[in-house]
Amino acid sequence: MINYPNRKSVNHSKVINYSRRGMSLEEDLNLTNKYYLEVDRAVIYKKPTPITIVDVDYKSRSTAKITEAYFQTPSTTDYNGIYQGLYLDFEAKETSSKTSLVLAMIHPHQLEHMKKILNHKGIAFIIVRFSYYDETYLIFAKDLFEFINSTKRKSIPYSWFKEKGILIPYSYQIKVDYLSVIDSHIVGGKI
Amino acid sequence: MINYPNRKSVNHSKVINYSRRGMSLEEDLNLTNKYYLEVDRAVIYKKPTPITIVDVDYKSRSTAKITEAYFQTPSTTDYNGIYQGLYLDFEAKETSSKTSLVLAMIHPHQLEHMKKILNHKGIAFIIVRFSYYDETYLIFAKDLFEFINSTKRKSIPYSWFKEKGILIPYSYQIKVDYLSVIDSHIVGGKI
Repeated sequence: MINYPNRKSVNHSKVINYSRRGMSLEEDLNLTNKYYLEVDRAVIYKKPTPITIVDVDYKSRSTAKITEAYFQTPSTTDYNGIYQGLYLDFEAKETSSKTSLVLAMIHPHQLEHMKKILNHKGIAFIIVRFSYYDETYLIFAKDLFEFINSTKRKSIPYSWFKEKGILIPYSYQIKVDYLSVIDSHIVGGKI
Repeated sequence: MINYPNRKSVNHSKVINYSRRGMSLEEDLNLTNKYYLEVDRAVIYKKPTPITIVDVDYKSRSTAKITEAYFQTPSTTDYNGIYQGLYLDFEAKETSSKTSLVLAMIHPHQLEHMKKILNHKGIAFIIVRFSYYDETYLIFAKDLFEFINSTKRKSIPYSWFKEKGILIPYSYQIKVDYLSVIDSHIVGGKI
């Protein structure tokens, strides 16, 4: 068992953490979802990046080559799936800021999508990593909407995450163990 | 109100149907899901086609152009979402055959995925259109697995669809009204 330094500690260990891990939130979530799938705990996938394909070279049929395509703006969140009969839906954002998350990082139609998920009795949330602090928070959609509706601010301060967010535990095996947060907040299928 | 001919009738009306509609199952499902979303009945999307991006031209930042990419084999089904708190997951296939659906059209990992969804208390099914008959069937995953486990056949005969499948109603507004089938088969969140 390797003795990893505490993730939320003084600067020198943070430096060690960065070089040790060097992984983005997306990579950590992919590993986490893969682990959940392998141990049959949940079935959650990141959706493929939506693109518009303009031209494909079919010279070799087995390896059709896309030669012109463009990125689309996603109309939903990036992740969804099923956990204990519940529909889970979330978006993940990473920021290097020490002070806040810029709200523009979450598209308006993604917020709309999360509202619809709540209306249909799904579990919607965002996962936000402050890479400077090496902290990853889970924010339930209803708390996010409360913040947005209560202010005209264009960013969410870090202090708000410390207050309203739930710090997601990290382990070597489960990089972003967000289901443990869901476990401790679900009562009768509801948050 | 336009008086559409019966969809399951003699040949001449079938010809009319084709020219009138000329739409693929995928197009019909996209319209259906869009309608469900607009009337806030369900939140169900087709996942984007998974591709591996090899090269992107960032000359113009606002319109990054993908210049080399390849199609991936999908590891899940194409459609998922939420309906009345239930996680729905399905794959859609269209065949021009009069006699059967070739099983190879459904990838083994898609079958695996559907098994996992059932284990986690989701609703998994396939939607199959026999374009020759202009008939679209919903097959619940448990029936599909029963067939697969009971035979070494490499295709599912049309007669089996008529027996085990549920014919999905069509209307001008809802092209493939599969939620009406779900409605009539769900009791207490289970099929």
